[in-house]
Amino acid sequence: MLITSEAWVERQLRMKKNIYMGGQLVGRDHPLIVPGRNVIAMTYDMAQDPKYKGICTTTSHLDGSEINRWCNLHMSVEDLLTKQKSTRCGIHNCGFCMQRCMGNDGLNTLSVISKELDEKYNTDYHKRFQEYLKYFQKNDITSALAQTDVKGDRLKRPAEQDDPDMYVHVVKKTKDGIVVRGAKCHITMGVYADEVIVLPTRVMREEEKDYAVAFAIPTDTDGLYFLNRASAPRERKHFKAPLAEYGSSDAVTIFDDVFVPWERVFMCGEYQEAGRMALLFANYHRHAYCGCKPGVTDVIMGFTELVAEYSGIERTQHVRHDLADLIAVAELIYAAGIASSVNAVKSSSGVMIPDPVYSNVGRRLAGENIYHEHNVLVAVAGGLPATLPFEDEFFNEKTAPFLKKYLARKKGVSAEDIHRCFRSIGDLSCSGFGSVWQIAGVHGGGSPIMETIAILANYNLKEKAEIAKYLAGIERTGPDKSEVFPGEKKNLETFKEHLRIYKK
Amino acid sequence: MLITSEAWVERQLRMKKNIYMGGQLVGRDHPLIVPGRNVIAMTYDMAQDPKYKGICTTTSHLDGSEINRWCNLHMSVEDLLTKQKSTRCGIHNCGFCMQRCMGNDGLNTLSVISKELDEKYNTDYHKRFQEYLKYFQKNDITSALAQTDVKGDRLKRPAEQDDPDMYVHVVKKTKDGIVVRGAKCHITMGVYADEVIVLPTRVMREEEKDYAVAFAIPTDTDGLYFLNRASAPRERKHFKAPLAEYGSSDAVTIFDDVFVPWERVFMCGEYQEAGRMALLFANYHRHAYCGCKPGVTDVIMGFTELVAEYSGIERTQHVRHDLADLIAVAELIYAAGIASSVNAVKSSSGVMIPDPVYSNVGRRLAGENIYHEHNVLVAVAGGLPATLPFEDEFFNEKTAPFLKKYLARKKGVSAEDIHRCFRSIGDLSCSGFGSVWQIAGVHGGGSPIMETIAILANYNLKEKAEIAKYLAGIERTGPDKSEVFPGEKKNLETFKEHLRIYKK
Amino acid sequence: MLITSEAWVERQLRMKKNIYMGGQLVGRDHPLIVPGRNVIAMTYDMAQDPKYKGICTTTSHLDGSEINRWCNLHMSVEDLLTKQKSTRCGIHNCGFCMQRCMGNDGLNTLSVISKELDEKYNTDYHKRFQEYLKYFQKNDITSALAQTDVKGDRLKRPAEQDDPDMYVHVVKKTKDGIVVRGAKCHITMGVYADEVIVLPTRVMREEEKDYAVAFAIPTDTDGLYFLNRASAPRERKHFKAPLAEYGSSDAVTIFDDVFVPWERVFMCGEYQEAGRMALLFANYHRHAYCGCKPGVTDVIMGFTELVAEYSGIERTQHVRHDLADLIAVAELIYAAGIASSVNAVKSSSGVMIPDPVYSNVGRRLAGENIYHEHNVLVAVAGGLPATLPFEDEFFNEKTAPFLKKYLARKKGVSAEDIHRCFRSIGDLSCSGFGSVWQIAGVHGGGSPIMETIAILANYNLKEKAEIAKYLAGIERTGPDKSEVFPGEKKNLETFKEHLRIYKK
Amino acid sequence: MLITSEAWVERQLRMKKNIYMGGQLVGRDHPLIVPGRNVIAMTYDMAQDPKYKGICTTTSHLDGSEINRWCNLHMSVEDLLTKQKSTRCGIHNCGFCMQRCMGNDGLNTLSVISKELDEKYNTDYHKRFQEYLKYFQKNDITSALAQTDVKGDRLKRPAEQDDPDMYVHVVKKTKDGIVVRGAKCHITMGVYADEVIVLPTRVMREEEKDYAVAFAIPTDTDGLYFLNRASAPRERKHFKAPLAEYGSSDAVTIFDDVFVPWERVFMCGEYQEAGRMALLFANYHRHAYCGCKPGVTDVIMGFTELVAEYSGIERTQHVRHDLADLIAVAELIYAAGIASSVNAVKSSSGVMIPDPVYSNVGRRLAGENIYHEHNVLVAVAGGLPATLPFEDEFFNEKTAPFLKKYLARKKGVSAEDIHRCFRSIGDLSCSGFGSVWQIAGVHGGGSPIMETIAILANYNLKEKAEIAKYLAGIERTGPDKSEVFPGEKKNLETFKEHLRIYKK
Repeated sequence: MLITSEAWVERQLRMKKNIYMGGQLVGRDHPLIVPGRNVIAMTYDMAQDPKYKGICTTTSHLDGSEINRWCNLHMSVEDLLTKQKSTRCGIHNCGFCMQRCMGNDGLNTLSVISKELDEKYNTDYHKRFQEYLKYFQKNDITSALAQTDVKGDRLKRPAEQDDPDMYVHVVKKTKDGIVVRGAKCHITMGVYADEVIVLPTRVMREEEKDYAVAFAIPTDTDGLYFLNRASAPRERKHFKAPLAEYGSSDAVTIFDDVFVPWERVFMCGEYQEAGRMALLFANYHRHAYCGCKPGVTDVIMGFTELVAEYSGIERTQHVRHDLADLIAVAELIYAAGIASSVNAVKSSSGVMIPDPVYSNVGRRLAGENIYHEHNVLVAVAGGLPATLPFEDEFFNEKTAPFLKKYLARKKGVSAEDIHRCFRSIGDLSCSGFGSVWQIAGVHGGGSPIMETIAILANYNLKEKAEIAKYLAGIERTGPDKSEVFPGEKKNLETFKEHLRIYKK
Repeated sequence: MLITSEAWVERQLRMKKNIYMGGQLVGRDHPLIVPGRNVIAMTYDMAQDPKYKGICTTTSHLDGSEINRWCNLHMSVEDLLTKQKSTRCGIHNCGFCMQRCMGNDGLNTLSVISKELDEKYNTDYHKRFQEYLKYFQKNDITSALAQTDVKGDRLKRPAEQDDPDMYVHVVKKTKDGIVVRGAKCHITMGVYADEVIVLPTRVMREEEKDYAVAFAIPTDTDGLYFLNRASAPRERKHFKAPLAEYGSSDAVTIFDDVFVPWERVFMCGEYQEAGRMALLFANYHRHAYCGCKPGVTDVIMGFTELVAEYSGIERTQHVRHDLADLIAVAELIYAAGIASSVNAVKSSSGVMIPDPVYSNVGRRLAGENIYHEHNVLVAVAGGLPATLPFEDEFFNEKTAPFLKKYLARKKGVSAEDIHRCFRSIGDLSCSGFGSVWQIAGVHGGGSPIMETIAILANYNLKEKAEIAKYLAGIERTGPDKSEVFPGEKKNLETFKEHLRIYKK
Repeated sequence: MLITSEAWVERQLRMKKNIYMGGQLVGRDHPLIVPGRNVIAMTYDMAQDPKYKGICTTTSHLDGSEINRWCNLHMSVEDLLTKQKSTRCGIHNCGFCMQRCMGNDGLNTLSVISKELDEKYNTDYHKRFQEYLKYFQKNDITSALAQTDVKGDRLKRPAEQDDPDMYVHVVKKTKDGIVVRGAKCHITMGVYADEVIVLPTRVMREEEKDYAVAFAIPTDTDGLYFLNRASAPRERKHFKAPLAEYGSSDAVTIFDDVFVPWERVFMCGEYQEAGRMALLFANYHRHAYCGCKPGVTDVIMGFTELVAEYSGIERTQHVRHDLADLIAVAELIYAAGIASSVNAVKSSSGVMIPDPVYSNVGRRLAGENIYHEHNVLVAVAGGLPATLPFEDEFFNEKTAPFLKKYLARKKGVSAEDIHRCFRSIGDLSCSGFGSVWQIAGVHGGGSPIMETIAILANYNLKEKAEIAKYLAGIERTGPDKSEVFPGEKKNLETFKEHLRIYKK
Repeated sequence: MLITSEAWVERQLRMKKNIYMGGQLVGRDHPLIVPGRNVIAMTYDMAQDPKYKGICTTTSHLDGSEINRWCNLHMSVEDLLTKQKSTRCGIHNCGFCMQRCMGNDGLNTLSVISKELDEKYNTDYHKRFQEYLKYFQKNDITSALAQTDVKGDRLKRPAEQDDPDMYVHVVKKTKDGIVVRGAKCHITMGVYADEVIVLPTRVMREEEKDYAVAFAIPTDTDGLYFLNRASAPRERKHFKAPLAEYGSSDAVTIFDDVFVPWERVFMCGEYQEAGRMALLFANYHRHAYCGCKPGVTDVIMGFTELVAEYSGIERTQHVRHDLADLIAVAELIYAAGIASSVNAVKSSSGVMIPDPVYSNVGRRLAGENIYHEHNVLVAVAGGLPATLPFEDEFFNEKTAPFLKKYLARKKGVSAEDIHRCFRSIGDLSCSGFGSVWQIAGVHGGGSPIMETIAILANYNLKEKAEIAKYLAGIERTGPDKSEVFPGEKKNLETFKEHLRIYKK
């Protein structure tokens, strides 16, 4: 079902208070929270907009009803490709991260792993998940996703910490459910989501089986607290702009002995699969970045082109080459997402898993380039995004005429448009909010070094060394030495299978 | 039809002498030519190998017969994807450029443009081309491709040169055909191809219509001369290795009033389309690079992994990160090829045209990284590829024991394998032949600056500026201002159309 | 003379009101202005501190009295080397730009050019300047520097603009002085300086001689207005820290028919030298950057090391390599400054001019790396600088225990120190103030593309081509062809001369 | 004393045969050896040339006689600065590495360490060294330098190797001297040097004291064998060019129980200082690179400028920016050398030790950029360096007119000059010889990763963390907490001391 953004906001406002900000217990109507909430509201609006039908919406594979794409499971390559498209469009509308992908990535992860757990351990997680999914789709739910534990001493494992609560874990099991304790940090949008899906953050050992826990709960569950930091562009008094209406929130999220009923528990003790669950979520989320980050670059590129036009330098070679660099970054990342989608494999639950090499090389390129992209925008824009007088000076009767006279640039561009352009670039690249998204561009979904590890873990370097041995005339010693390039044929079969899947 | 490599070589040897090398008129059996010819022979062998059935072979859309993939037109997205795969496999077998793609890129270009010319100018080029294609497929032809003119003064157009022959042009037309004069440089494999397809190298104006000429002729046609430079790894006396058996040839190719019969002429005077033909070939060839270059990187990566293993440093973090960089380069380029294939559009001739933004961002990334990749291999290998004693020292009775004793590295790796490994890296990264492929990696298919130009020409930056205007609250002034993100919807339609095409 | 910071601040507070901020006419005691003023106050304090004697102070070459180094002219190589040192130390104390260098760079520029003008045009600018310098040193003056005009249409010269006021120019000359009109932008510290030195921003032509004007005036001169934008880290309620006490101000500076008496005019109409004056100031300021930017990198590097230690990852290889990158950037820039100092030449006024090739390659490297350096800090720090809860949450009785428990990292590091560390990194890399300094790092003193132009203008590429010709056996055609490497000998002589100068 | 190149070559030819190449025992007149020998001969010629007086020559501090600078000890900052200059000039004359610096770096190392050994262990190494130095200067000796052992298993220390000979070590001591065994690899110019200085390659432990050995012997000492690999540009038949006359040799150098008399032994068993000796030599050699590498870049830059001029593209923005990149690399490295020289400290032997942070950041920048620089040259030159026909084609009567006609470029540049230019670029960037120098550019003097280690070892990161603590308001805990920035004052004193030393 598709609900309106108004209905969703009303639902938000009915929630119990459990958010701390500025030393106060605040409600979901706190003015600092609103800009972030607006981003999610936008995703409800886009789903109502005929222009985005089939992009921001799709058909539930459960019952054929029309649903928001962010409530969908990826049942086909086309679903994955359209997920990329949908994310990119979302960012074109709000200017930054559109946030709702995380809960969806969690849903897909839970679907795959709950099925695998049932197959291996004869549990009934997948049935629980299916019920949860029905609820999710029926109520057009927005979910946050909590994965990163606070971790304490980085050189010690969860079970080795002085304080056992450094990773979220089960402290009690009852007939009705489990009680969990711990804290997750960097949790985006918890303060304006309906639910939060909680996943383990790493590989666990047998002695850490209490840490192998996954579940989903409403965001106003008792014992759950958000110590929240909200971010948004500086408020506009006069030059209202869509960009300045959107923001975000991140919270240190406390699980202070939170009760979770069994029907909302999707892993509990199967430590052997905790790592797979953590990495599978990362894979979905890195695939999401391959749609999202090109949208962010589109915005940076758009402002670079616009400010170059306003300054009359849009044809100079170095500006053109800078723009080509931005295009290349955006489209290489998007291409990695396409390749990851096209090479996806079907899990036992029927949900498609994007190819992890491509999702990771794409996300890594994004993480490596975000600061460079801001550098490009700023280099072309010049110093004004940092030194533009405050908005009021443009309206004070003494100073307004000075600014109108002296900030003029190319003929035919109004002073107001020049102001709007530079002020918005200031929001993007010269503000606390802009900095949050620079940092998120490095770390969100895992920093480049995490992708480097994932790439190496998923790539067959031995096979490449076999190619080298063949070419150097060195006898190969591997088990597949009858094959000239072992594995290649198999890859191709897999590849063709994808094509078939794709065609269905 | 598929012919054997033996049959193909015999056909080569029957050709007339028109190759100059070392001050001599030499035959196609000259020892310096053989290594390059071996690469083409390999493409005939691979087509005979069941392991590569469906990859290196396919079915002619003309008559359903089995043909070498390099004689094929790309009638589907799958054809484009398999072309990438086929190229990558070829390089795994010979270590460098597998060369035969160029003629195929020319064929596809001629098919598209000859059809378009007929549609616009009521000519019959496409029928001629269809006949030529039948001949090509039936005889399993290998074609070189000659595009780059010698160009004279770079700041002058073809018609402005002091010497009108700086670009190949028609000097005479007769009832039976045309006579052409000029020279093309950097022409690879002309001295071991059956045919050479000749295309214009740039946009032409009306006064340059004699330069708007495309045709195909046998490589031993009268008046055609190759001033050839052959390259190959140093010949091995003892440590024979596949890598050292393959090479290449590039020639300044002289058209000294060459006669071309009408049935082999595919453009003659339609100057308006010369640029499109030139760029379309570039597009096909840059798409080819998106399959080829990952194969080259696989080889570099394989030797990096191998030499790291032999030195016992394959687990050190900086080596692992270097390898991840190589993987990222290879797979981002390959992903760009996949995205270019998946987003291809069907031309009026039925042949698919890869998306030029993706083919260009992929090729550009390749061109920007080739030197860096050799740097990585060399950094991990250490100085020995440059300072390894000559082969003879490993067999002289005084010196061989010294080398056996002192070049030992990790236990369990034989002295011979160490020698083979470093000697092959020397071939790759420390030889004239290796340097040729570094330079080809920069310039082959167009240097990064040419792709930069192509990317900018094919990308809608204005649309991105419209996104910026919307976000900044600036009124948009374009013709599509009713659409929030003009063109996006349309792109999606196109995109979906591709999916449909793909599914057929 | 050295005055105290208290005395200086009192002098500031006696100034007339001419600052607009937030729509108000405000005084020099406005709370947003104080953090920036603190930086200048610090430079007075450092001069009083025995630890910095000889670094932050020196002896006037006019009268031998002890003066602040920022009132000094560079009479020797040692002066230039100590200027670098003094700047670096200043940044270690305030964390960012120490600002007072600009006025000093202006002083040195005026000394050199006023002398040259007198020599060429028989004027008496240098005598005026000498008087001004005495006043400057005697009163321990702080001067801002205004160079960058608002420029209007970037593709038109000053005289071609629709509005002639787009560059500051003389509108009237009287017996007593001149009247100037126009506006300069990005003018740092105008609102907390005693004086402002005004220089032309570019080469001028004869028809632009009214634009060839240089002068110095008190910052509260009638008709001078600052439309000011102040920046500072977020104010601390509890975790007070030096870093958070300092800030900056930049203003669009309006010259609304400002009268300048003749004794304060140092160029007026000598358009032929406007470009030399503009570039000479740039050279001094880029040399200043070669001392300043290493200090900024020291701060970034210090926080990178500190946060790595607190997280227990300071020995991991990738963190170590990141730190080495930061060291290399800092020390290559500092080395460029040293080389620029050692290769300085003495001007006719006796003031040393740093070598422009070295000052420019140093500044360029700084401008190219600033975003990368923040990226390194942020990559090592993780996401917490962006998601750390507000200060109040650390003091609220419900939330403080959670944060104390859950933000613990390595044993032995207190929760407060962890908070302080991440909050300060937030100030540096995740705040509007931090962003201002990223942008200033790109553009301050001229962006990398301006240095690229300056490098090419000052470098003898023809001489390098002569080396190539010699090596290739191509006959050289230049006027110096008797010399094997023309100019080299001469360079060496110049070089030795510097050594002699240096030794004096 | 200065001897002529003729006298030196004659001395070479009197040596005993101990070189193996191509399976033969060959003499020092072998044609493959001559190009390398020419480089050394050039250093004798330059010392005779009045133009280089004071650059390539200097005055012995022992007896005041005029000596070749490569026989000199660095007794002052000026000596270090002139060493840089001399190296750069040498490369302008031969196009590549001028090789003779290595022996000089070894001499300076031996002087410093032999003195320190005597001070610590009451030995008489320094007296022996002084005698050796007299002999060296009196006979105008050229010495090779052998440091890098073959190393066997990289993960094991010298004493842990299965074969104890993997590092050169003392196998016997007698009344008259010592007997050494082992092998050193990558030993440049051993086959055309008078002497070879042998140093340990790493830190040694007590059980490895036999490996702590340093000595100097004639290159035709009994038991010493060179398994040599010679490299040179392709021989020219017609287009003779200085570049093509010079080359190099590298050898696996075998010490097959070589006797060394005590007067030539400069360390024997003092394992505690083996590491310092190894690193000090590295420091001198990295300082040498800071003079050498800018010369190599001058040559690359010269050919880039020349080929751009010949092609008429020397004013295009991207070519200009590429040239600026080359200038920046050359001059930043040179500046690092100047800073290293200016900040040198005097050792107890009186010899100056360059600052290791600056020598290492300089050498590291060189090693990181060499492949990029060739990439730039090749990108500007286009494909012709790789595809230029062989020299003979330019003289064959059939083909010469074609080449003359078709390789013409800009008017006024002769066909021969175009050929010479491209052929020389081919030698530089498209030949086995060129590749040797690419690899040497990465590894010679230690690869970038070795400099990274050295930078981190010599840099006070803790001090930078103290700056961060101060700024963040964190209490500092170090021993120097009374000092705000501990160590800084001291650095300045040291710095000033250098200035004094410099002035003497």
